[in-house]
Amino acid sequence: MRILGIHTDRVYYKVTSKTKFAEPDPIKEDEMENCVLLFASVEKLDEISPELTVSAAVDSIMIRLGRLGAKRVMLFPYAHLVSDLGCPGISQWILKNIQSRLTEKGIETKKAAFGWYKEFEIKSKGHPMADFSMTICPYAGGECDSKCCQSNPVNKIIS
Amino acid sequence: MRILGIHTDRVYYKVTSKTKFAEPDPIKEDEMENCVLLFASVEKLDEISPELTVSAAVDSIMIRLGRLGAKRVMLFPYAHLVSDLGCPGISQWILKNIQSRLTEKGIETKKAAFGWYKEFEIKSKGHPMADFSMTICPYAGGECDSKCCQSNPVNKIIS
Repeated sequence: MRILGIHTDRVYYKVTSKTKFAEPDPIKEDEMENCVLLFASVEKLDEISPELTVSAAVDSIMIRLGRLGAKRVMLFPYAHLVSDLGCPGISQWILKNIQSRLTEKGIETKKAAFGWYKEFEIKSKGHPMADFSMTICPYAGGECDSKCCQSNPVNKIIS
Repeated sequence: MRILGIHTDRVYYKVTSKTKFAEPDPIKEDEMENCVLLFASVEKLDEISPELTVSAAVDSIMIRLGRLGAKRVMLFPYAHLVSDLGCPGISQWILKNIQSRLTEKGIETKKAAFGWYKEFEIKSKGHPMADFSMTICPYAGGECDSKCCQSNPVNKIIS
C-alpha cells in the first residue's frame, strides 16, 4: 500500500462521475480544515494480508500524526500512486478499516468517495514535514521499500 | 521516473524553506491556471540514461497533453512518489531538460523550485482523465511498470 500524505490547511472534494467500482452511496461533497490528507492506493500485494496491511498502515499513520501534532485525517482513495492496484473489494475493506481504527484512536477521520472521479482543492502547509509518503509492507507489517515483496516467492502466487 | 499528473483549474506555490539540495535562485512564488500539474520524482534508475529518461518523459507527457487538449504545464519537483530518489544533480538536469523540450514543442512550461519546501494550492478539474500517473522506464525508453528494471542486471550496478 502506498500513501502520500500532505499536511493541509484545507481539503475539499466533490464527486464528478462514477467509475465502474463506485461505492453506491458516498458522501458526495466534503471538506476538512487543518488535517492530514492521505492519498491512498491499495496494491495487489496487500491482498495477501489485508488485516496486517490495515494494522501496519494505522501504526505508521499514527506515528506521522504524532510528529505533526495532527488530530484530523482525510483518507482519500486514489488509484495513481502504484502500478498494480488491489481489487476494489479488498481495497475498500482496507480503507474502511483504516478509517474505523483511526477513529477508535481519537482521530477525526473522513474518507472520500471510493470509485468516483472527484474534483478537489488542497491548500498545503509546506513546512519541512508537511509532505511524506509511506509504503506499507504486507510481509513485514510495517513500512519498507517493497524490495522484500519483489523477492518473496508468495508474490508469484498473486501476480 | 514517476510522474503524477493532475489537470487543474489553478496551481499556486510559494517556497517556505530550503533543503540541502536547494537550487540557489529559484522562482520563489508562482501560479498557473488551466494547466497540467506534473509532480515528478526522478529515480536512481534514471541515472543509467538521463537523456533517454528526458525524451521518454517528454513523449509520454505530450501524449497526455494531447488527450487533455492542454497547452500549459507546471512541472513540480516532488520527492515523495518513489522509494529510491535520483541524485539531485541528475534530477535537476532531467527536469530542466524536460522543461526546455516541452517549451520547444509549444507548451508553456513552468518549473517549481527544486530542493525547497513549498506550500501549494491545487484546484483540480476532476474529470475522468484529470488524474493520471506515469512510470518512465530508462531501459525501454517509454512507460512501463518498472518490472523490466527489477529484473535487469544493470540495476545491480547502481543499487
